[in-house]
Amino acid sequence: MSKKSYPLAKVYGLLETGPVLLLTTQDGQQANVMTLSWHTLLEFEPPQLGCVVSDRGFSHRALQATGEAVLNIPTVEIAEQVVGCGNTTGAEVDKFAQFGLTRRAAHQVAPPLIDECYASLECRLVDTGMVSTYGLYVLEVVAAWVDPAVSEPRTLHHRGYGHFMVAGESIHLPSRMR
Amino acid sequence: MSKKSYPLAKVYGLLETGPVLLLTTQDGQQANVMTLSWHTLLEFEPPQLGCVVSDRGFSHRALQATGEAVLNIPTVEIAEQVVGCGNTTGAEVDKFAQFGLTRRAAHQVAPPLIDECYASLECRLVDTGMVSTYGLYVLEVVAAWVDPAVSEPRTLHHRGYGHFMVAGESIHLPSRMR
Repeated sequence: MSKKSYPLAKVYGLLETGPVLLLTTQDGQQANVMTLSWHTLLEFEPPQLGCVVSDRGFSHRALQATGEAVLNIPTVEIAEQVVGCGNTTGAEVDKFAQFGLTRRAAHQVAPPLIDECYASLECRLVDTGMVSTYGLYVLEVVAAWVDPAVSEPRTLHHRGYGHFMVAGESIHLPSRMR
Repeated sequence: MSKKSYPLAKVYGLLETGPVLLLTTQDGQQANVMTLSWHTLLEFEPPQLGCVVSDRGFSHRALQATGEAVLNIPTVEIAEQVVGCGNTTGAEVDKFAQFGLTRRAAHQVAPPLIDECYASLECRLVDTGMVSTYGLYVLEVVAAWVDPAVSEPRTLHHRGYGHFMVAGESIHLPSRMR
C-alpha cells in the first residue's frame, strides 16, 4: 500500500468506528504482531487511546520494555492473516513470515508498519497506571500513515469466535459533533 | 422492539464491533440520553467496559450520583435521533420528548431502556479511578436485553462530524479467539 502522512487531528475518525487492529512491537531483533479489538479513544489531539493487551500473550513484554507500538488497521482482504495472528503466539511463531505480512520501517518508533494494512499509527506508551487492573495501556499516536486510495476501508469488527462484521456503507447527517 | 433477556457471557460480542451507543441516566425525575463512541470492553464475564463521558456534558453528574446507566445500541433506522442526542444537552432539552424516544423500565437499575434500540445493557458503575484523568467510567453489565428478531443489526460507527459507517456484511473464519 502506498501510505502518505495523515494529520494527527483526524486520526480519531479511523479508530472511533471500532476496527480490529494489528499491534506490532519490536524487542531487540524480534518483531511481533497481535490482533486486538478492545480499544477506545481517550483524547482527540494529540490522539490518545486505551488498548487492552493481555499479560497472557507475548506482546505486553515488548510494549512495556520499549514503550513503543504501531497500530495497523487491516481490512477484509487480509482477514485470514488477522485471525491467524490472533490464534498464534509470538513465543512460537514469526508471524510476519508465517502469514506473509510485510514490514515497513516506521519513522519515529522501532516497531514496523504492516504494509498490507491501509493505515498505520506510530504510538508511544504514555500511561501504564491501568495495566495492573485492566491490562489497559494508554498510547499516544505520534505519526500516522494512510493510503489515500482507500476511501471506504472495509475494516473488520469482531463479534466473537471468528465472526466479523465488515464495514458497510457510509452515510452523512448534519452534525456539530466532532 | 421486543427484547428478550440475553446471556451476559455473550454481551462482549455486541460491543466489540465499536457501535455508537446511547447512554441513559436517571437523576430523580429526570432521565437523559447521551451519544457516545468512546468505549472498550475490559472484561468478558461479568462484562465490564470503559466509557468516556465528558464532564462538559450533562450525563456525568447523574452517572456519578447514582452509579447507574443503561447502554442502548441504536441502528441506522434512528440515525437522526442519535445525532440529535449528540447535538443537544439534557440541561436544556428533554431528549426523549424532543426525539420521540420511548422509555421502558429497566429491571435492575433506574435509568430507562430505549425501546427503539435493538439492544439495551443495564449497567452499574464499578470504578471511577480513571475519571479525573480520562473521563473513563468502568461499567459492569448486570442485565442485557436484545431483540432476537434482529440478527444483523445495522449499527452506526462514527467517523467524525456526522459521517457514519453502517455495519455491513458478516463473515466467519475458523478461529479459537473468543
